[in-house]
Amino acid sequence: MQNLTYKILEKHLLKGKLEAGQPIEIRMDQTLTQDATGTMAYMQFEAMGVKKVKTELSVSYVDHNTLQNGFMNADDHAYLQSVASKYGIYFSKAGNGICHQVHLERFAKPQKTLIGSDSHTPTSSAIGCIAIGAGGLDVAKAMAGIGYRLTCPKVVEVKLTGTLAHGVSSKDIILKLLELLSVKGGVGKVFEYTGEGVKNLSVYQRATITNMGAELGATTSIFPSDEVTREFLKRQQREEDYIPLSADEGCHYDETVEIDLSKLVPLAACPNSPDAVKNVSELSGMKVDQVAIGSCTNSGYEDLMKAAAILKGKKIAHNVSLVVSPGSRQVLMKLIENGTLSTFVSCGARILECTCGPCIGMGQSPKSDAVSLRTFNRNFYGRSGTLSAGIYLVSPEVAAASAITGVITDPTTLDYADEFEKEQSYIDDSLIYAPSKNPENVEIVRGPNIKTLPVNTPMDQTIDKKVVIKLPDNITTDHIAPAGAKVLPYRSNIEKLSTFVFENNKPHFDEVCKENNGGIIVAGENYGQGSSREHAALAPMYLGIKAVLAKSFARIHLANLVNFGLLPLVFDDKSNYDKIDEMDELKIENVDSFYNSFDLTIENVTKKETYKVHAPISKEDVEILMAGGALNYIRNQQ
Amino acid sequence: MQNLTYKILEKHLLKGKLEAGQPIEIRMDQTLTQDATGTMAYMQFEAMGVKKVKTELSVSYVDHNTLQNGFMNADDHAYLQSVASKYGIYFSKAGNGICHQVHLERFAKPQKTLIGSDSHTPTSSAIGCIAIGAGGLDVAKAMAGIGYRLTCPKVVEVKLTGTLAHGVSSKDIILKLLELLSVKGGVGKVFEYTGEGVKNLSVYQRATITNMGAELGATTSIFPSDEVTREFLKRQQREEDYIPLSADEGCHYDETVEIDLSKLVPLAACPNSPDAVKNVSELSGMKVDQVAIGSCTNSGYEDLMKAAAILKGKKIAHNVSLVVSPGSRQVLMKLIENGTLSTFVSCGARILECTCGPCIGMGQSPKSDAVSLRTFNRNFYGRSGTLSAGIYLVSPEVAAASAITGVITDPTTLDYADEFEKEQSYIDDSLIYAPSKNPENVEIVRGPNIKTLPVNTPMDQTIDKKVVIKLPDNITTDHIAPAGAKVLPYRSNIEKLSTFVFENNKPHFDEVCKENNGGIIVAGENYGQGSSREHAALAPMYLGIKAVLAKSFARIHLANLVNFGLLPLVFDDKSNYDKIDEMDELKIENVDSFYNSFDLTIENVTKKETYKVHAPISKEDVEILMAGGALNYIRNQQ
Repeated sequence: MQNLTYKILEKHLLKGKLEAGQPIEIRMDQTLTQDATGTMAYMQFEAMGVKKVKTELSVSYVDHNTLQNGFMNADDHAYLQSVASKYGIYFSKAGNGICHQVHLERFAKPQKTLIGSDSHTPTSSAIGCIAIGAGGLDVAKAMAGIGYRLTCPKVVEVKLTGTLAHGVSSKDIILKLLELLSVKGGVGKVFEYTGEGVKNLSVYQRATITNMGAELGATTSIFPSDEVTREFLKRQQREEDYIPLSADEGCHYDETVEIDLSKLVPLAACPNSPDAVKNVSELSGMKVDQVAIGSCTNSGYEDLMKAAAILKGKKIAHNVSLVVSPGSRQVLMKLIENGTLSTFVSCGARILECTCGPCIGMGQSPKSDAVSLRTFNRNFYGRSGTLSAGIYLVSPEVAAASAITGVITDPTTLDYADEFEKEQSYIDDSLIYAPSKNPENVEIVRGPNIKTLPVNTPMDQTIDKKVVIKLPDNITTDHIAPAGAKVLPYRSNIEKLSTFVFENNKPHFDEVCKENNGGIIVAGENYGQGSSREHAALAPMYLGIKAVLAKSFARIHLANLVNFGLLPLVFDDKSNYDKIDEMDELKIENVDSFYNSFDLTIENVTKKETYKVHAPISKEDVEILMAGGALNYIRNQQ
Repeated sequence: MQNLTYKILEKHLLKGKLEAGQPIEIRMDQTLTQDATGTMAYMQFEAMGVKKVKTELSVSYVDHNTLQNGFMNADDHAYLQSVASKYGIYFSKAGNGICHQVHLERFAKPQKTLIGSDSHTPTSSAIGCIAIGAGGLDVAKAMAGIGYRLTCPKVVEVKLTGTLAHGVSSKDIILKLLELLSVKGGVGKVFEYTGEGVKNLSVYQRATITNMGAELGATTSIFPSDEVTREFLKRQQREEDYIPLSADEGCHYDETVEIDLSKLVPLAACPNSPDAVKNVSELSGMKVDQVAIGSCTNSGYEDLMKAAAILKGKKIAHNVSLVVSPGSRQVLMKLIENGTLSTFVSCGARILECTCGPCIGMGQSPKSDAVSLRTFNRNFYGRSGTLSAGIYLVSPEVAAASAITGVITDPTTLDYADEFEKEQSYIDDSLIYAPSKNPENVEIVRGPNIKTLPVNTPMDQTIDKKVVIKLPDNITTDHIAPAGAKVLPYRSNIEKLSTFVFENNKPHFDEVCKENNGGIIVAGENYGQGSSREHAALAPMYLGIKAVLAKSFARIHLANLVNFGLLPLVFDDKSNYDKIDEMDELKIENVDSFYNSFDLTIENVTKKETYKVHAPISKEDVEILMAGGALNYIRNQQ
């Protein structure tokens, strides 16, 4: 009797034992990248010297950097297109849609494993696969046929009963879980959805939940593959990919959470965290300046149809700017053909490209002090591009209702049709280019923004550096390596990118690092939550950061630190965090001594005291660290 | 017997005599602004202390800065919306379309005068009005009821005969004129279109021509108001605005150019000037990286229908990125409803917002060394955001044909339907907001990017400064005050904007000015051509530039220099240009002596020689200059 998670993991297990907390290694069937993380992933793949990807399927998507202010983005796209063609990777061109939306529609298969260089890769788990977000280097390794190492997760059963009421959305299910469990609540866990309530959720609704499971810090989230899945795959003209899959009855779960869908009400995550959840009714009447519908969380066919049901025949309030970004070209085509795009345009919506867009701060920054309602997954400080704006994460229904009234509005109070035209099958893969049949003839296109990949040096035996920054709990990778239109063009240019590290916490952090010849970062709980971007390890590495000392780490970022040779350490006694001040000099001697014990002692030279710390990593991780990161480690083995 | 131009000018004449070369002042019935120039125009209008605009109609459009990277753009939009509401101005919200497209469709009227703070304002002259581009201050003055002063233009008859052949576009007519006359060929002139060929051109086709008349340097271009005009206005449900209007038979023209439409072939303006025109057949086969269809030149219903006729059922080449920006929300709605938007999406086009977009470098910068085909009006160096890219200005037909083949392609060689569904009437003004009925209750919204307006000091009697930059011929306002996504957000923030002045000609120009306590600019012919942006005068003024010494000036920029109190001087003997080097010290004494003579002597202190120069301006201009610009002048009079 197995839960669904372990069933799939078992089929892919290369090393280790399926026991929560144990290190395991699994085979990855599929990979995906997006352009903001992909350039770096492919540079690393190139450095591995493999001739062709060894996965069943690898796809390179362009969906993040599509505003193209300056030559850098288009140069990245050209590089990605040529690399894909040469190395056996499918290429989804700019305009084809958001990676998670397209992957779910066209490629994800029940029972498969997928690793993607984007933290919302678990979206695809809505159809019963194990999809995990990771740093680009881990994706590059998977493409090179190297197994993916992770800590075997605990499995949490989320038992759904009942049916959602009028105006309540699957977004409210995941917001409820965030309210219950917080952004740290899912660390080291997979959330497996069961119960009668599952049947009442479409694949798009499930995808909203698995997508935003990332905000819980979960390894992934998973739904069974059932008749709803089959119907979805059939409409995508790939019913042959369907396999029925579910947990064995009476199987073991490490924890169980029950949610009665019929009791949920519309929720909103308030500034600046996805778990700062309130009932929409409590916020009702607050004036709204901007409403944004879209992103990999809520840009599927049904999401947009539900918003349109509320907007139909109405006009947006004068004080509101409404923007809509369909998730994929297929979705856009359906909306054009069934008249829904007319509904959006007619009510006053601005139609953006089928990309991530404002979710990652690529445009549509709201005005100063704005209230912005977004159907997205993250509302971290500054991510919208406007530091003073308050971002509220809501369902498409709340977004649409509020766009019309101009104030935050509970859609359960509105009368509108819950039913809408069933999704029509519209399939068009013509912007997905197959790899070349003559890869030897493909020349890689490297524009001037494609810089050489910086590689770390083997770990020093003594680290003696100043604390160049001390940070609170829940620091995100957006804090470490900001996204947004100003910075994203430099994702292939680490030298330039490093000038933006911690720019909203500590301006000129890069200069502080240079003046002090590198340094050590001290942080609180859940350091590195959020996006999977390995740039949050790579750019600090470039600035000479040798170690990060935190109360705890987020999963993907911890792996990224190891991959790039930065020593991740946690306090044995968390209260020691308070004893350290910025610019204290910390000294770690005999770094290699922890090969065996994973324990080290840090001397605070300034304060003349010592702290016991340990590295929350595996034996193999230690070897990678000592080599100065995974690329060196892989090269040393060849 | 009068030509059409003088007929309309006469009806609006406030001062002076209709004689080419004489200073005149005319009443302006309508004004328009866009957001990149509008914020400054309205700050100036506010500074004039007028309670309500005195025009028949004033419209404030948002179409330039809609990417919104950072709070600045949205702050500008909020400011513009509140100012419009308070002062009796209509507000066209972001998403409603490009100012010239919307104005043509909804507001322009035969026989009226229109002044707009955008150099392509003449677009509206396609329906028989006099529409002129100007600096924002001149538009502010018009809103305050002050007449517009200009030099009475020469009128050039452009006599069209015959009919365009299959695959040849009205874009090719204006490109042919640019080839014949150059970007300086229209200075001080109005181009008036006559002849049998006019009847065969729709209003959209005419608008492409009047739009790009700006590239000739013309004051404006004009078409008669005829049955074609009536039909257009009828489809816009405003047939009541129709007045038949044409030149009297046998009237006087200063020059005549004849063009036989049947002999034209598809043309392209090659990098980096709109008059570097070649036959498309000469360029055939050149590999294309990007194709962009849209902009105020070619984004009307017919433009997009013609492109779609070629794209229908086809797919774009793998090496091409195709972007399409419809000119207005009305156009977009028509394309959705008649299935044309499906054609675009299906062939692989990326659909952008109904805005200026890539034409002003707001996104879609091509990759390094790219060949980019654009249906736009300008291909100045660097304007696309990619310095190394080559921009070719072409018709929608050439653009579409090349997008499919992936190489520059002559559409006359293709077989496709010339006929398409006649434009359907679709009217929706719901994103155009009428001004408030209670203006006293409207509070102006000033975000932190709305800075105080810098105002010049009265002219010094002695100017003794260094030549901080020496420039060649045809310097554009894009060179002086660059546009693009990086700079445009600072159009309301002159301090910040001034750091970008001449950044592609002379990086850190602002620092040179600071080190030398201001300076003098020396330039060649046609200085200040291109966009109407007064920032090209305002930002140098902020940097302490006191005089610009050139071989000749473009019309709008000359007016802007006067408006902001920078002394515009031209060489009596142009060969003296060669004698001056950068960093020479130039001295002008008794500046006020030229009140009477308009003549001055410049001493080159470094070279120990003198040059005779004069100011190509009117008596009233001199008074404005002495006051330190128009705002001071107006205030002094109150």
